[in-house]
Parts: sequence; C-alpha cells; structure tokens
Amino acid sequence: MTDFTRTKSRFAIPDGVIYLDGNSLGPLPVAAADRVGRMISEEWGKHLIKGWNVAGWMTQPRRIGDRIGRLIGAADGTVVVGDTLSIKVYQALASALELNPSRRVILSDTGNFPSDLYIASGLLESLDRGYELKVVAPEDVEAAIDETIAVLMLTEVDYRTGRLHDMRALTRKAHAAGALTVWDLAHSAGALPVELENAEADFAVGCTYKYLNAGPGAPAFIYVAPKHADTARPALSGWMGHHAPFAFDLDYRAGPGIERMRVGTPPIIAMAALDAALDVWDGVSMTDVRHASIALADLFIREVEARCPELTLASPRDGKRRGSQVSFRHPEGYAIMQALIARDVIGDFRAPDMMRFGLTPLYIGEAEVRAAVDIIADVLTNRRWDTAEYRKKALVT
Amino acid sequence: MTDFTRTKSRFAIPDGVIYLDGNSLGPLPVAAADRVGRMISEEWGKHLIKGWNVAGWMTQPRRIGDRIGRLIGAADGTVVVGDTLSIKVYQALASALELNPSRRVILSDTGNFPSDLYIASGLLESLDRGYELKVVAPEDVEAAIDETIAVLMLTEVDYRTGRLHDMRALTRKAHAAGALTVWDLAHSAGALPVELENAEADFAVGCTYKYLNAGPGAPAFIYVAPKHADTARPALSGWMGHHAPFAFDLDYRAGPGIERMRVGTPPIIAMAALDAALDVWDGVSMTDVRHASIALADLFIREVEARCPELTLASPRDGKRRGSQVSFRHPEGYAIMQALIARDVIGDFRAPDMMRFGLTPLYIGEAEVRAAVDIIADVLTNRRWDTAEYRKKALVT
Repeated sequence: MTDFTRTKSRFAIPDGVIYLDGNSLGPLPVAAADRVGRMISEEWGKHLIKGWNVAGWMTQPRRIGDRIGRLIGAADGTVVVGDTLSIKVYQALASALELNPSRRVILSDTGNFPSDLYIASGLLESLDRGYELKVVAPEDVEAAIDETIAVLMLTEVDYRTGRLHDMRALTRKAHAAGALTVWDLAHSAGALPVELENAEADFAVGCTYKYLNAGPGAPAFIYVAPKHADTARPALSGWMGHHAPFAFDLDYRAGPGIERMRVGTPPIIAMAALDAALDVWDGVSMTDVRHASIALADLFIREVEARCPELTLASPRDGKRRGSQVSFRHPEGYAIMQALIARDVIGDFRAPDMMRFGLTPLYIGEAEVRAAVDIIADVLTNRRWDTAEYRKKALVT
Repeated sequence: MTDFTRTKSRFAIPDGVIYLDGNSLGPLPVAAADRVGRMISEEWGKHLIKGWNVAGWMTQPRRIGDRIGRLIGAADGTVVVGDTLSIKVYQALASALELNPSRRVILSDTGNFPSDLYIASGLLESLDRGYELKVVAPEDVEAAIDETIAVLMLTEVDYRTGRLHDMRALTRKAHAAGALTVWDLAHSAGALPVELENAEADFAVGCTYKYLNAGPGAPAFIYVAPKHADTARPALSGWMGHHAPFAFDLDYRAGPGIERMRVGTPPIIAMAALDAALDVWDGVSMTDVRHASIALADLFIREVEARCPELTLASPRDGKRRGSQVSFRHPEGYAIMQALIARDVIGDFRAPDMMRFGLTPLYIGEAEVRAAVDIIADVLTNRRWDTAEYRKKALVT
C-alpha cells in the first residue's frame, strides 16, 4: 500500500497553499534543488567536459527514459527523454505518417491539446502533398476511424475536462482499420496507470513537468513501439540520434531503436531535476494513486456541487472516464480562479470558462480537498471574485 | 579595456586544471549554481504555477535572447532562446527554403558541423520534392554560390580546424545570386565579434554551452532578420509561437516576428544558468576578447611548433582567419589527448586525428598557455600517451 504521508513529505509545498495545479506544473520535490546543485557544482564544475563520460550525461536520456517507461507500461529501451512535447509530437507524427505512406488523413479531436494540432498542421503544410488533419469531437473519434486514416493522434486525457479516452480500444480499432496511433500522455503519465505495451500503442509522447513534477519546461519523452523502432525514419535527424555521433560522419545513419529519436545535446541540468523528481515514485503503486485520485475527485465534485450550485461540472462524473483533474465551468471562471489563488487555493483557468483543479494523491489528501471547497464556497457565495483586479488577464492563465 | 583578471574570477575552474575546451563546454560560472538554486527553491518552490507570470518565466526566451543578441550584433527582438541547436537549424532551414520557393539546392560545406548536415538531409527527405544538399570543401564555397542555390547554410567557424568563414562577403555573394543564408554561430557566439545585422545574415542559430558557458545541454537560440521575421513560416509550429498561446484556439496563427520561432514550453531551470552565465559578459568588450584570443593562439602555435614537431597545425596560421581554437593533427591524437587530460590539460579530440584546444581569454591567460605547452611537450617527448589505457575510446570524445 502506498504511503501518501511519505510521498507528501517529499514535496516542498509552501505552508497554507492547497496546490491543485499539478496537472499544469507539479510542485518542487524536496530533493530536486540539492540534486541540481550537486550536478552543477560537482559534475559540471569539477568534471567539466569529462562529465559526458564520467557522470553518465550522454546516456541519461535512455536511463531516465527507462525510469519513465516503468510508469507508463513501456519496456526498458523504448523511451527516450529530450526536447519539448511539441517537438516529440512532431517526431512521432512525422515518423508515423511515413510508416503508413498510402494514406493521407490524420484523425484527432477537439480535446487534443492545441499545440499538438498546431504541430500537425505545420508538418502537413511542410509536407504539402494532400494531407488532411481531421478534427472531430472527442465522442466522435471512434466512429471516425476508417480505412482512410493514416494516423490517429490523440491526447489520452483532455487538458480541459479531464475526459479519458480508452487507449486500448481506440488503438485496437485504429489497427483494425490499418491506422497507426500517436498518444500524448501529458495528462496521463504519473496521473493514472498507462499500459503502452498492452494497449499496443505505436508512438507515445509526454511531458514531465505536470504529474511527474520535474519543473517548469522540464524535458519531454517519446516512446516508439519496438516493432517500429528500427524502421521509423527520424524527421529531426540530429547528431545524438546518429548511429555513431562521435564518428562525425558527413552522412546520417539512424541509431538503433529509440536512440534515433534523440536530436541534439541533452539538457543535463534539467534532467538532474527530473531524475530527483522520479525518485518520489519509488515505492508508489500507480494503482493506489489511481484509486486515491478518483476518491479525492469524487469527494471534490460532491462537495462543490452541494455548496456551489453556480458551478457546472465539465468533467466526466464517472471516475473511470476521468484523468486526475476536475473542471468546472463558470462565465466568470477566470476572475473566480484569481480570487482562489489569492486565497492560496491554486488551480488554473482555460479559456473560455473552465476552472481546472488537479487532484494528485502524492501531496493532496481529503483534508486539503475539504479545505479547498470551504474557500471555493466562500469565494462564490460572497462574490469575492467580483473585483477589477481579479478580472485583469495575466499573460499566462 | 576588459579586465580579464575579473572575468577569470567569475569562473569556478578546479585548481590545477588548464581548461582548453571551452569550445566544447564552457566552465561553470561561479554565480550559476546559486542562481539556479534560487530559481528552483524560490521561484518554482514558492510561486509554483504563478512563476510563469510573477517570475517572468514566459518572457525569458525573448529577454535572454536580447542579451545574446547584444553579443552577436543583433537588435533587440530578433533573437529567441529555446530547444537545441539541431532543432533551431531545422527551423531556420525550413523557413529559409520556403522563402525561396523556386530553387532546390542547399549549399553547405564539409566543415559544417555534421548535425547541421544531418538535419538538412532529414528535412529534405521529408519534403521529398527534388531538393539537393550540395556539400563542398570550405574553400570552394564561394565559387559554388550561383543562381541555383536556395539557401547557403554554413557554420561560421569550423568545429575541427577553427577556420573562419567571411560571413559578410559570403552573405553578400549569396544575396547577389538570389540565395538566403543560414549561419550557425556555435563556435562564434562569445568567441569573436559577430555582426549579424551588418553582415545582413538572414537566419542564424547557435548554442550557449560553448563560449557562452551556460552548462551542458543549455538551450540554443535563433535569429531571424527583421525583414523575414513576419513572413517566415515556422515549420515547428508549437503553441509558444502562436499569436495567442493562452487562447487555446484550435488553429495555428504565427506570433509576431521572432516569437513564432518559439515552439514548446521554455526550459526555465536551464535558462537560469544561462542568465547567470551571460552576466559574465557585462563590461566585456568582444573586440578585446578577440585580440586576446588571437594573441594567446599565436603564442600557443609558436610554442607547440617549436617544441612538438610531431604535431601538424590544422588551423589557419593567420589569426584573422581563425576562431578561438587551435587544432593540431597527430595519428595518435586520441591517446595523446587522453594523456593530456590525465595531466589536467583539458582539450578534446575529433575523429580521425584532430586535437582541439580552445583559447578563451575570459579564463585563460599567457601563464596557462605556457604551462599547457610544457605538459604537451612532456607528453609527446616522453611518449606518455603510449599506453593501452589512453587508447581506449570513451563514448564521448
């Protein structure tokens, strides 16, 4: 049984803050600052260039990729860390399209994170050979899978509503129709059990700054199913994915398997924080996390609906169909969220009217949920959000 | 006059080490560890998600881009930080090709860093419409510029030999022939005066972990000339380059100017180190750096040639045609370099036979050069490199 008191003690959350935004940026793991400091002072400072070998920098994208793989049902040697999620989406989609060369339709949905759609449309514009990005409503995805689809590209958990796609069923249907799949795990990795191999996903990508708590702008990851890993052509063919990067050949030869999805020099300082953040998961059962997350979210929904009738639930009511967040709509959602943040109940807002609350058992328990609802109820009942200050939009919401 | 005693005091170089590899990975600026520690503990730890606004994270790629711009002759608002150099090469080349749509040849040279060539060939394979990557010898570049060339893509300073291209003259010739230019400043930024605007470069890219000393895998940067910045289509169209990232529109609209070259979530922890590293440049004249660098390199060449006749100079003898490194060839260069590193004279090796020595006045002076040559002479004269241990190839050279 996972000890959530212990996991909570491993995060440095400021006193009085109820942090319900781990779905956007996870909080600081206590060990991260020291780990990064040591990496900088000891490894970079003392080893200098030798750090690439003696401190194992060069192999970290694979080593840390394996650690992430264990959290998402992927075998060792199938996940590699680097770049940003948008870049990893580009790589996955570009490779997947080439593996299915006779088809011209990418199927996605309006619940996909916009950047994934932007990246896809940018890629298709570059390719300029009749590709179509077909974007349907999430509930229409299954019916839209047919034999025209080259690649089904979805984010498993909707960033606004928390709605959870059935990865296994949709992948099976895609495969039956001759399509490949690209799954974005941004709101899945660390939030719920993911079984990439069992689901037979072809490609998957994700970020590490949400439920994996690796810090702002932490590196992303990519998974390629073993059956594709040696045949997928890397569109972003950088030297770190070369068969022999330090031979400095003039011609590119893709490295073996997942190595070819590496691009440029790996972000060593950021990976030190990621490595420390992954230590939190030692001894944690993802099944326990899932059960606790659903229980917390069910409690949150029940209490909010009982006390704040102005709010409309935007997330699935059935916990099994939800990720690890709960969203409510309100026309003044932005101002309400600013008022909550001023009271140290930190969630976030997604246009046009969505307030998001991440419920992460690693550091959130029933007491925090109840305390948060008290404040939400006060802010709404007493219209504490109704000020010019709280309506003023910041650059980042 | 730049005070190089002061700049040297701002680096944490281990006692006894003569660090001649700043052309590969710059040493640790003293202030970097604290700056990163503060960013982690204070900004991430205390502000959590609010850091995007209150700590200015979201605007850092532009703010720090401007700081880099001042070192490379680029106006404010023309440089943005993010990703890796290979990714930035991809962006620059993809945009440049589209701006010159009637042509199909990319001209580069064998002195370009292999990853740039790999990235180009990967892009051309994706585009699949008759593009050709023409790679000539560095001395043949000028003559090869003709009216078939879409884009001239060069690294200004050769990573092996330190040979310096004439950016202004080649850009002028390229423009006269109707070609655009992409300049890689990996071995230029922080090494010598770069005048992107005066040279009328169209695109430029660079890394920050060499002469800018921002740490292993530090983020890259991209420059787009103002005349192209609002028309260049970003091939990697991620949400951070969107006109309104937090509107979460389903359709991509490129942001204004250089903003569109942003892709994914910026690497905040790594940028804290970069910001601290750039502080070292306050009060430093790049002209002084250049004069000192040439004087150090001239001394190094003179002394090495006098005392180590087995070594063959691989760099231009004329300091004005060289970057800030000196390279010597020797068939046993790898083993010799390992023996030097064991004696704390740290340079590096590039296949097949090249020993590289970076001479960076910020922290290297005449005393270090003379001490290094003493050790090089001893290692060669007494064949101290001639052991099995030193011949054993490491993963990273």
